[in-house]
Amino acid sequence: MNYKVIFLFLFSTLCRADDGYRLWLKYDLIKDAGQRASYARSAQLIVLNSTRPVLKTAAEELQTGLQGLLGKPIPIVASAAGKTGSIILTVNPGQPQLNDEGYQILNRRNTITITGKTDSGVLYGVFALLRHLQTRQSIAQLSLTSSPKIQHRMLNHWDNTDASIERGYAGESLWKWYELPERIDPRYREYARANASIGINGTVVNNVNASSRFLTAEYLQKVASLANVFRPYGIKIYLSVYFPAPKTIGGLKTADPLDPEVNQWWTDKANEIYKLIPDFGGFLVKANSEGQPGPQDYGRNHADGANMLAKALAPHKGIVIWRAFVYKADGKADRFKAAYDEFKPLDGQFEKNVIVQVKNGPIDFQPREPFSPIFGTMPQTPLGMEFQLTQEYLGFATHLVYEAPIFKECLESDTYVGGKGSTVAKVIDGSLHEYKLTAIAGVANTGSDRNWTGHPLAQANWYAFGRLAWDHTLSAEALANEWVTMTLTTEPTSAKTVTDLLLKSREIYVNYNTPLGLSRPWTGVHFAPEPWQNRSSRPDWTAVYYHRADSVGLGFDRTVKGSHALAQYRPEVQRQWSNPETCPLPYLLWFHHIAWTKKLSTGRTLWDELCSRFYSGADSVGAMQKQWASVKKDIDPETFANVAGRLVTQQKEALWWRDAWVLYLQEFSKQPIPAPFKKPERSLKEVKELVEIYQLR
Amino acid sequence: MNYKVIFLFLFSTLCRADDGYRLWLKYDLIKDAGQRASYARSAQLIVLNSTRPVLKTAAEELQTGLQGLLGKPIPIVASAAGKTGSIILTVNPGQPQLNDEGYQILNRRNTITITGKTDSGVLYGVFALLRHLQTRQSIAQLSLTSSPKIQHRMLNHWDNTDASIERGYAGESLWKWYELPERIDPRYREYARANASIGINGTVVNNVNASSRFLTAEYLQKVASLANVFRPYGIKIYLSVYFPAPKTIGGLKTADPLDPEVNQWWTDKANEIYKLIPDFGGFLVKANSEGQPGPQDYGRNHADGANMLAKALAPHKGIVIWRAFVYKADGKADRFKAAYDEFKPLDGQFEKNVIVQVKNGPIDFQPREPFSPIFGTMPQTPLGMEFQLTQEYLGFATHLVYEAPIFKECLESDTYVGGKGSTVAKVIDGSLHEYKLTAIAGVANTGSDRNWTGHPLAQANWYAFGRLAWDHTLSAEALANEWVTMTLTTEPTSAKTVTDLLLKSREIYVNYNTPLGLSRPWTGVHFAPEPWQNRSSRPDWTAVYYHRADSVGLGFDRTVKGSHALAQYRPEVQRQWSNPETCPLPYLLWFHHIAWTKKLSTGRTLWDELCSRFYSGADSVGAMQKQWASVKKDIDPETFANVAGRLVTQQKEALWWRDAWVLYLQEFSKQPIPAPFKKPERSLKEVKELVEIYQLR
Repeated sequence: MNYKVIFLFLFSTLCRADDGYRLWLKYDLIKDAGQRASYARSAQLIVLNSTRPVLKTAAEELQTGLQGLLGKPIPIVASAAGKTGSIILTVNPGQPQLNDEGYQILNRRNTITITGKTDSGVLYGVFALLRHLQTRQSIAQLSLTSSPKIQHRMLNHWDNTDASIERGYAGESLWKWYELPERIDPRYREYARANASIGINGTVVNNVNASSRFLTAEYLQKVASLANVFRPYGIKIYLSVYFPAPKTIGGLKTADPLDPEVNQWWTDKANEIYKLIPDFGGFLVKANSEGQPGPQDYGRNHADGANMLAKALAPHKGIVIWRAFVYKADGKADRFKAAYDEFKPLDGQFEKNVIVQVKNGPIDFQPREPFSPIFGTMPQTPLGMEFQLTQEYLGFATHLVYEAPIFKECLESDTYVGGKGSTVAKVIDGSLHEYKLTAIAGVANTGSDRNWTGHPLAQANWYAFGRLAWDHTLSAEALANEWVTMTLTTEPTSAKTVTDLLLKSREIYVNYNTPLGLSRPWTGVHFAPEPWQNRSSRPDWTAVYYHRADSVGLGFDRTVKGSHALAQYRPEVQRQWSNPETCPLPYLLWFHHIAWTKKLSTGRTLWDELCSRFYSGADSVGAMQKQWASVKKDIDPETFANVAGRLVTQQKEALWWRDAWVLYLQEFSKQPIPAPFKKPERSLKEVKELVEIYQLR
Repeated sequence: MNYKVIFLFLFSTLCRADDGYRLWLKYDLIKDAGQRASYARSAQLIVLNSTRPVLKTAAEELQTGLQGLLGKPIPIVASAAGKTGSIILTVNPGQPQLNDEGYQILNRRNTITITGKTDSGVLYGVFALLRHLQTRQSIAQLSLTSSPKIQHRMLNHWDNTDASIERGYAGESLWKWYELPERIDPRYREYARANASIGINGTVVNNVNASSRFLTAEYLQKVASLANVFRPYGIKIYLSVYFPAPKTIGGLKTADPLDPEVNQWWTDKANEIYKLIPDFGGFLVKANSEGQPGPQDYGRNHADGANMLAKALAPHKGIVIWRAFVYKADGKADRFKAAYDEFKPLDGQFEKNVIVQVKNGPIDFQPREPFSPIFGTMPQTPLGMEFQLTQEYLGFATHLVYEAPIFKECLESDTYVGGKGSTVAKVIDGSLHEYKLTAIAGVANTGSDRNWTGHPLAQANWYAFGRLAWDHTLSAEALANEWVTMTLTTEPTSAKTVTDLLLKSREIYVNYNTPLGLSRPWTGVHFAPEPWQNRSSRPDWTAVYYHRADSVGLGFDRTVKGSHALAQYRPEVQRQWSNPETCPLPYLLWFHHIAWTKKLSTGRTLWDELCSRFYSGADSVGAMQKQWASVKKDIDPETFANVAGRLVTQQKEALWWRDAWVLYLQEFSKQPIPAPFKKPERSLKEVKELVEIYQLR
C-alpha cells in the first residue's frame, strides 16, 4: 500500500463509520461484484441536457449514489451520443399517468429513462432508482410509475429562536439563527437531501408557538438563506407566524383580522417575503390555542383569521395552514370535542388557499388515539393531517417506537362519511371531497445530534413518514424493511429481524404505557409516569381528567351517558364504539368507564387485562433486547451498542411505567395482581419519589 | 485498486474529513517520508509492563497517535527484549525533579523512556511526546521534564438537567442524562482524551446554579457511569451542589450549616457518593449569589457553609471549591468591591480542604478586567482561579476571540502583596503563600456541536486553557502556534498567519466592544449591544450602572472620590491606577470618570480616542477576513468556509457594536465623529430597533 492508501485506511478508522449522519443515503459499495456489474450495465453515463437547479441536483445525487454503490465514477454528459447503458433524465410536461411531481422510470435495452412532468419529478425518480439499487432489486426490466397522492408533504419544526426545540429529544435546532445568513452549515443541505429522497417538499422551520422575530427583515434574510439551500431539492420553506405580529413588530394598535390596516400590514409583509423568497410556501398558524393569541381575541373566528392571511398570500400562490388544535381550559368540558365543535361550523367559510391542519387524534399525539372526528366532516374545507414524529408521548429518545403503524392506523380508519371505505386517507388525499389542496405534516424528530434523531432507529420514523406522505398505501412493514436495508444491513435475515422489531415496538409501548385506551398519564415534561397527577395550572391538564379512575372502574365515558363525544362520528362508527361489547379493546377506555370486575372479550376482567398488558408489555422489552442481540454480527458496532444501551433504559422505564400504573390503580380497584404476575418490588411511594426526582428543579 | 481500497476512498469522501470532531488529536499521516522514518527509528515498539487502567490508556493513546502519524501499526509489548527503537512507559515513584503528575521523556540511542512518578504522569508524558511529533519537532536527543504548577486543573460545565447549557453556544450538553447510566455515548471518552491530552484532571459536570437531582441516588448512578469513563484518563469528577439539598431532597426542615442533622446529612451523602465513586473530586458551590441560597440565609457565613461540606468530604480526601462570585442587589454600592469585602475577613477560617474560587476580574468575565483584588489578600486561604472559556461576553460563537491573552494578562498581573513580582500566577500556583491546595478552572466552551466549540477556532481556547493550567509560563503565542499546527495546518507560513490572527483577535474585539475599560453594555442574553439599558430587575444589572455616561464624561470613578474600590489593591497598584495620567488606558474607565474633552496619552481626547477604537476595531475584522482568505490553500475546505462565514457575521456585528456605542455616547458627548471616520449610516433609533428584534419573544 502506498501512503495515500494507508492514510485513507487510518483515516477511516479514526473517523466514525456509522455515527448515523448519513441516514439512509449511505451508498456503501455493493459487495457482490456480479450485482455491481449487472447494475453497471445500465449506469455507464448520466445524461442531462439542462442546467436548471433541481435537475442538476438530480443528476448529481444520482452520480453520488451510483459512485458509492458501484465503486466507480459515472460521468454526467449532455447527450448519450448513441451509447447504450446510460441513464437519461428528462422532463416531459405532457407525460400521461403522472401528476406534477410524479415520475416514470423505464429500462429498455439497458438504457434507463427517468421522466418527470416537472424537474422535481425527475429528482424523485432519481431517488426511487437509487432506492431500488440500495435494496438490491433487479433493474433489468424496470418499469416504475409513481405520483404523490398528497400535494404538500411537510415537516413542521417546533424550533425556537434560542435553538431549543419544543418537544425535541435529539439535540438543538438544526438552524443556527445566530450564524445565518452569513454562514451556511453544510448540514442544511444534508437535511434537504434526506427530505427530497423520501418526497418531502415543504418545511416549516419555526415553532407553531411562534416568535415575531421571523417576520422581521432581519430574520427574513436568514430564512431566505435557508430557502436558497432547500430550493434545488424541490423543498419550499414556510413560516409559523405569531398572529399579533402587526402589533408586536408592526406598531399597530390591533391585530384584528377585519381591520383594514392589519390586512394591509399582512399584504405588505407577504410582498416583502416573496421579494426575498419567490417560492415561499406560506404560513402555519396556531391561534387561540394553549395561550397563543388569535382572531377570537377580537371577537372574530378562525376563518376570519385564516382568510386575512390567505388573501395576503394568494397573489403569490402561498397557502395558509391553520391548525385545528384548539381547546378551552374547562375541566367540565370534554377536550375531545373541542376542535370539531369549533371548526365544523366554519366549513365552507375558508378561502381557497387555506388548509386546516388536524392532528390525527382528537386529543394530542397519544400512543394510540381513535381518528379525529373532524376528518370527513368538512367536505368544503381542505383538511391536512398532522402527525408527530418526535416522541413527545412515546418515550423521548430512549424508547423504540416505530410510528408507521400509528400513521397507518389513522389513515386506514373508516370515517363512513361517504359510505364504507371512506378512510381518513381518502379525506386527506382529497379523493373523497375533491379537495383542491392537500397536505400532510410530520412534527419533526430531527435535531443537532450527529445521527439526527437521537435514537438511531427513530430515523425510520422520519423515513416512513415521508414515504407514506407520498403514497399512503405503502405498508408499514415494507417501509420498515426498506429503511432497515438501506440503513442498517442488507443481510436479509437480520433485516427481517430488525423489521419485525420495529413493527411490534409500538404495541409493546402501548401495552406498558397506555393500554386499552388510557391517555395522558405523564409528568409535566411528558417524561415519567404520573397517573396520580391531579393538580395543574389548567383543570384539563391533569392525568385524572383523562383516566377517571374511581372505586367502580376506569375510563372516560364519551357515550350518550357521558360527554357524548361519540356523536361527532358517523352512525356506523358510533354503533361499534358506543357499545363496550363491540368497541375495539384498544379504544375501550377512550369511550367507556368500565368496571374493574367487568369481563372483557379476552376472558379476563378489566383489572386482570390491564395488569396483563402492563406486565407483558414490560416483559416484551426484554424480548426486544434479545432480538436486537441476535443481529449484532450484521450491524455497525457503534450503532449496535447505541441501540442496545437505549433498550436497557427502555426496559428500566417500562418497569417504572408498569409499577406506577398498577400500584396507583390498585388503590381504586382493590384487587390483587393476578397470577402469574408478581407484585412490584417497590411501593407506590417509592415510585412517586423516583418520579419526583425527575421533576426537581 | 481492489474494491476495499475503492470503498475506503469513497467512504472517506462521503464522511466529512474535517468537521472538527477530532480536535487537535488528528494524527494525520506525516507527509514527509524522511521525517516519518526519522521518528520511526525510536518508535518500533511500545513497552508497558502493567495493566493498570491509566497506563493502559497511555500505551493505547501512544499507539493510536503513532499509527496515524507514522502510518504503520506499532505493537504494545511487555518487554523490549533488548531491542532498541522502543518507547518505554514506566512509573518511578522516587523520580526526582517531578511532582506527582509530572513526566520525564528521554531519548537515548533511539530508545525513548517516558517516566512518571504516577500513572497519570506517564499519560501526560505520552501526550507530550505525541505533541512533539504533531508539531514536527526533532526527537533525536529529546530530553523533556515537566510538572504541572497547579494541582487541580478543571473544566466547569454550566450544564443543566434538560441538556441546556447556561451560556453555552455550541449545542446542548455533552451529557445525556436521560440515557445514562445505560448508554455510554462514545463522545464521553473523546472528551476525556482531549482533556487528558492537555493536562486537565478534573471536571464539574453540572451547572453552579445547581439542580438537587444530582445528589439523588438516581442521578449519582449516572454521574458514576461518567466517572468510570473519565477515570482511565486521570480525570476526577466533581459536582456542583445546591446548598439547600438537605431540605429539597433530604426532607430536613433546614439547611443551616451549623445544624447537626444537616451536617449528618452531608456526611451520609458524601459516604454514599464515595461508595459509588471512590475517587470523587468534591463539590463546587455557588451560594448566596444571584439568588442561589446559602449559609447567609441562616445567619451563617461562607466559611460556615464551606466547612460543613469540607468535613463531610475530608475522610475521603474530597475538596470543596467555594465560589467568591457574590454581590448584593444594591444600585448604590460598587459591585467591584463585594467579593473582597465578604471574603477577606474570612481568611484563615476555612478548613484545609476548601479552596475559594475567584473569577479573574472583580465583575464578571468582561472582555477586559483588571485582576480581582482578592488575589494576594488571603494568604491563609487557598484561592483558585476561574476563567471563562465560553464566550458569554465575547460574541458567542460568531466572534473570533483567542482567550490566552486574557488569561495571561491576569496571571501576569502584579499584586505586589509580597513585593514586586508577586503575580496572580504565583498566588494561585501556591508559591507565594505556600498554599497546600491549588486549583484553576475554565468554564467550558464545549457542547454537542460536532466540532465541540461552535466556532472552529474556539477549540484553541479549550486547548490553551489546559496547557496554561499545567504551565502558566507558556506564552499565548507558543500555544496558539502549537494548536494551529496540530489542528489546522502544518504548513509553517499559514500556521504563522493563523497564529497571528488568533493573537490579535482579543484586542480587536475589545476595541469595537468595550474599549478603554468599558464594561457590561449587553442585552439580557448578553448577545447584542445595549449601552442605553437603564431598567432591570436589579439596579446593578443595567448598562448605565457600569459606564456612567453623562454630559461631563464617561467611566466609573473608583478612586477615593468615588467608590474607592482601588483601596482594595496594594499601594503600588493604587498609585499607578488611581491617577488617570498613569492608569493604563485599557483600565482607564474602570477606575475613572473622564471628561469627554480630556486629552489622553495618545494625544486624542477621550471622545476621539473612543471613536478611533470603535472604528478601527470594526475595520480590523475586515483585515482578519483578508488574512484568513490568504491561508485557504492550507486549510480543510469545510473548516475554511466555516470560519470565513463566521468572520462575515462578526464584521456585521462589529459595525453594530460600533454604531450602538458612538451614536449612544454622542448624545452625551455632543461631539462630532472625528475625521477620518464617517458618521454611521444608520440612526441610533435604527440600531435600537435591530437590537429589539433579538429580544422579541
